[in-house]
Amino acid sequence: MKPTHIEHIGIAVKQLEEAIPFYEKLLGTPCYSIEEVAEQKVRTAFFKIGQTKIELLESTDPEGAVGKFITNKGEGIHHIAFAVNDLENVLEDAKNEGIRLIDTKPRKGAEGLDIAFLHPKSTFGVLTELCEDKNK
Amino acid sequence: MKPTHIEHIGIAVKQLEEAIPFYEKLLGTPCYSIEEVAEQKVRTAFFKIGQTKIELLESTDPEGAVGKFITNKGEGIHHIAFAVNDLENVLEDAKNEGIRLIDTKPRKGAEGLDIAFLHPKSTFGVLTELCEDKNK
Repeated sequence: MKPTHIEHIGIAVKQLEEAIPFYEKLLGTPCYSIEEVAEQKVRTAFFKIGQTKIELLESTDPEGAVGKFITNKGEGIHHIAFAVNDLENVLEDAKNEGIRLIDTKPRKGAEGLDIAFLHPKSTFGVLTELCEDKNK
Repeated sequence: MKPTHIEHIGIAVKQLEEAIPFYEKLLGTPCYSIEEVAEQKVRTAFFKIGQTKIELLESTDPEGAVGKFITNKGEGIHHIAFAVNDLENVLEDAKNEGIRLIDTKPRKGAEGLDIAFLHPKSTFGVLTELCEDKNK
């Protein structure tokens, strides 16, 4: 596995409308996209900083993963996403190395990326996403 | 405030010796530095990925901030650090905007950087570090 860079960092917040103005000020850059990802039960807001994006995540369903995260742990950093090439092979390699996968096959995430999550039990508590941008 | 990039992401782990080989495999790059930061009661291990570093943090004292974090929340993502220019002015601006500061003045962190933390109560639960590299 050799990710090229950190694609984004996901931050769980209660309300995008409150968090967006704060992050616009902190990062000195406007939110460039708000997108609902129905499958993941979130609304997302994106900011670009260098090579990386900050993705704010607002739950749209208390039973979704982000809804449960906020209920259990409160607002805060939710996951790190690494950009990789050839995600299918990377997942195969990860599986062969004994890493526990949440997604055994890529699925569609925000911004049209192919994504898959590794289980935090295998990654020292870090919910880890792998992303491939097939449109670039 | 206009950070240039994400300087590093801090991940709290129980034991560097266990976590380093895993992260070397995940990131496809060797750990390039292990450093004890006595003031912060941690041993750190660094990896480079694109513009950003991954900093693994092992507690050297259960009463330190990382020791308490692991006791209360377990291993996982601990903080995000943004690279800024002119940290003293950035802190002044942050204070004037009502952001709660952990450090009102820069202090020395790992790798000889000047650092200061913002309080997670002000940043939607995200322990946020600002770093300036005066040696570059």
